[in-house]
Amino acid sequence: MQYDLKIIQSPTVFSFSLDAVLLGDFAQVPKHDHAKIVDLCSGNGAIALMLSQKTNSLVTGVEIQERLVDMANRSILMNELKDKVNMLHIDVKEIKSRIKHDSVDVVTCNPPYFKVTGESVKNPNEHLAIARHEIYLNLQEMMKATSFLLKTKGKAYFVHRPERFLEILDTMRAVNLIPKRVRFVYPKEHKEANMILIEGIKNGKETGFTVLPPLFVFDQKDEYLPEVRRMIYGKEREEG
Amino acid sequence: MQYDLKIIQSPTVFSFSLDAVLLGDFAQVPKHDHAKIVDLCSGNGAIALMLSQKTNSLVTGVEIQERLVDMANRSILMNELKDKVNMLHIDVKEIKSRIKHDSVDVVTCNPPYFKVTGESVKNPNEHLAIARHEIYLNLQEMMKATSFLLKTKGKAYFVHRPERFLEILDTMRAVNLIPKRVRFVYPKEHKEANMILIEGIKNGKETGFTVLPPLFVFDQKDEYLPEVRRMIYGKEREEG
Repeated sequence: MQYDLKIIQSPTVFSFSLDAVLLGDFAQVPKHDHAKIVDLCSGNGAIALMLSQKTNSLVTGVEIQERLVDMANRSILMNELKDKVNMLHIDVKEIKSRIKHDSVDVVTCNPPYFKVTGESVKNPNEHLAIARHEIYLNLQEMMKATSFLLKTKGKAYFVHRPERFLEILDTMRAVNLIPKRVRFVYPKEHKEANMILIEGIKNGKETGFTVLPPLFVFDQKDEYLPEVRRMIYGKEREEG
Repeated sequence: MQYDLKIIQSPTVFSFSLDAVLLGDFAQVPKHDHAKIVDLCSGNGAIALMLSQKTNSLVTGVEIQERLVDMANRSILMNELKDKVNMLHIDVKEIKSRIKHDSVDVVTCNPPYFKVTGESVKNPNEHLAIARHEIYLNLQEMMKATSFLLKTKGKAYFVHRPERFLEILDTMRAVNLIPKRVRFVYPKEHKEANMILIEGIKNGKETGFTVLPPLFVFDQKDEYLPEVRRMIYGKEREEG
């Protein structure tokens, strides 16, 4: 799809990454205008902005860091999307104060990937550390908030790391988000996967687990492969 | 690897399949001569015979169906492998009567894939039905036998279907076989996976889960891709 979006970012605070682009593409949202769509850990709003291009429904981004909410709001204005995307500056753990339980059709989240441990090398930049490490929100808390929000049969979409795959599956199921489809992302052919995209359905049946076709990011010359180029630049640029 | 093997099979009783070839290739066995290697649900012994080409240790196949054990024994004689492969004609559930617990280095298994349910369409051919449906052995029983046999840090290798992936992971962990590496097998590019190869380590740590590079079986002309051709025919034929 073509994202005709300008997205404000800052390398010293937050840059959205390929992970966000992949999740924005992977997540399926209803086209109609009466769904509720929520993007948790929204950062500078990149995924919320991308999703707004696939639906006529309102997309709500939830982000704890004020500077990132401010960036997201400026992107929303710049893209004239204030009727389609709004941002909540709150902690995901406090989501129940602002959004009703069992009310949301689709939740997306590109959460912090890394556990906080004694040994974990945190990013010395606090903004980046919060986005990447489980300082304010861990996997369990994120999944709990997602399940709280979703209607029965509502869909959750996450991007994460394969090394935490077992834990992700367990954590999802512990809050009745049944893993249904997974797509493994490989940096290139003959390499191990370095990202996973996963879809869960709230209160779904635990049957029919599907492993989607693999996604390769780069070719042997380290250039984006067509499928990824299309996600990043849109079809027109790919053809041009 | 080159398998210079003649393997007896019969379409009306049992034919070994690509699944067996993939598992025979995926499983890592010590080269030395003092390991214990066991192939459960061994059928006509295809995997046991393949493994014997990668190790100097004895490989033991375990199979419940007498006609298949007989076929395997004829293949063993024909390939002059009677010092390297032996067959046990027993039910996997009775394995403890013949092999000591915590004594095996590597267990492989290409088990029956399909659950027996009221609706399940069983193969009208009894031999094939037993090989493909969980008539005599289900996933839990197979995993329990595997874990019983393996030493701590011993390795288990399974081939199965992606739709049962969550159940496989749970069942493995329930008997302390910690999933460590998985390889998804796709019939061709842009298709969903239709097989999984999975490695578990008995009493392993639940960290470092790895998703290996994907394996594609066929090219767009429905011909085997080189990696699979190499597994089936060996290197020489690929080059010739």
